[in-house]
Amino acid sequence: MAHPHAHPHTENHLTSSAVLQDIVIGLSDGLTVPFALAAGLSGAVASSGLVITAGLAEIVAGSIAMGLGGYLAGRTEVEHYEAELKREYDEVARVPETERAEVDELLAEIGLSEATRVLAVRELTADPDQWVRFMMKYELGLEKPDPRQAPKSAFTIAGAYVVGGLIPLSAYFVTATPAEGLLWSALITLVCLLVFGYFRSRLTGQPPVMGALKMAGVGSLAAGAAYLVAKLIASGGHFGI
Amino acid sequence: MAHPHAHPHTENHLTSSAVLQDIVIGLSDGLTVPFALAAGLSGAVASSGLVITAGLAEIVAGSIAMGLGGYLAGRTEVEHYEAELKREYDEVARVPETERAEVDELLAEIGLSEATRVLAVRELTADPDQWVRFMMKYELGLEKPDPRQAPKSAFTIAGAYVVGGLIPLSAYFVTATPAEGLLWSALITLVCLLVFGYFRSRLTGQPPVMGALKMAGVGSLAAGAAYLVAKLIASGGHFGI
Repeated sequence: MAHPHAHPHTENHLTSSAVLQDIVIGLSDGLTVPFALAAGLSGAVASSGLVITAGLAEIVAGSIAMGLGGYLAGRTEVEHYEAELKREYDEVARVPETERAEVDELLAEIGLSEATRVLAVRELTADPDQWVRFMMKYELGLEKPDPRQAPKSAFTIAGAYVVGGLIPLSAYFVTATPAEGLLWSALITLVCLLVFGYFRSRLTGQPPVMGALKMAGVGSLAAGAAYLVAKLIASGGHFGI
Repeated sequence: MAHPHAHPHTENHLTSSAVLQDIVIGLSDGLTVPFALAAGLSGAVASSGLVITAGLAEIVAGSIAMGLGGYLAGRTEVEHYEAELKREYDEVARVPETERAEVDELLAEIGLSEATRVLAVRELTADPDQWVRFMMKYELGLEKPDPRQAPKSAFTIAGAYVVGGLIPLSAYFVTATPAEGLLWSALITLVCLLVFGYFRSRLTGQPPVMGALKMAGVGSLAAGAAYLVAKLIASGGHFGI
């Protein structure tokens, strides 16, 4: 969960690209976690119905947590931007000398001489809107967020999580035993992880074959570890199935 | 999953704050998803052992997906920065006039007059290192990532996810039935979500009481929906437990 965007420093604000990014976020987790949970339970229980129940419960829980969580995070970001904008306008009006010194410092950092800075600071701070825009972007590193982005993101991420999660689970619907379900689930999911990892890397300009292998590696490791843990508990006899 | 950082535009690079941010990411998901899954299964199965098995499998799967996924995302970010840095150095050497025009454009955007821009461009581009640093930060919006951050982040996020997930699950260890487990799990987890939501909002400067209620709301909604779905499947009689 959360991987492709744990520490992003860049963001493309084109709408199509934001949607694609949200699909990637939802699919990355959706393909991985429900798959690993179903695989884990396959080694511990005798009923495919149980694997399906747990899998669907996970998909519902995960998609709501991701979608609603993403929505609230987006709202918070909009509020944070507005609060900072208000504060910058306030500071520019109240303590212009301090703010002018901050502009001067930023310009010194990029290598301008004192003489050029005097001119640049005067021009840059002539218009309060322009001044505040500069402070928001270059001092605080804040871009104006689109308030309509948060609900759209929430739906896209949650939807992609559901689609991703149903892929590994579908195998258990059409097979008789959890063992058989696991076999087909692992096959289908590995292919999807490879394909998805390939295109995700192409999208971000990374080596695509390596990206495919990484994605499949994360899924396999998570599934393998979940399988071992569930098997261990089941063989410990905590419950008789 | 992934909520507090779905679309972050700011980042504090202080190490202590990065660790805190990773703990918040791991705890947000760890407290929510395993709780909701366990709650969902509590309405569908008769054995607490099953709830515990599924819960532990989910914690293992989720922490690996988040931790390893976060690690790989961090590595990708470092590689991306290095590739862009190389490209900028290359462009500055190969097509200096194009790059100089880009600097001029950025300076025009922030409101500098043509006369000042002539001086500023000359000074800024006098040193290639300084020039490239400017392009990386102001044209591409890229900050130099710390290569040691990725593995540290992975461990912190995964660890926080495990801790968060064990809290709701612990109730099932000490109670006799899933129904009893659910009661205590919901109580303990709601308190933790409120407390965690409160401090998370304080940390980001948001209204803390509202943040506490939001966090508890996400957890409750995810758990309630998972409970309904699992109950529905179980009553449909897909398996006889």
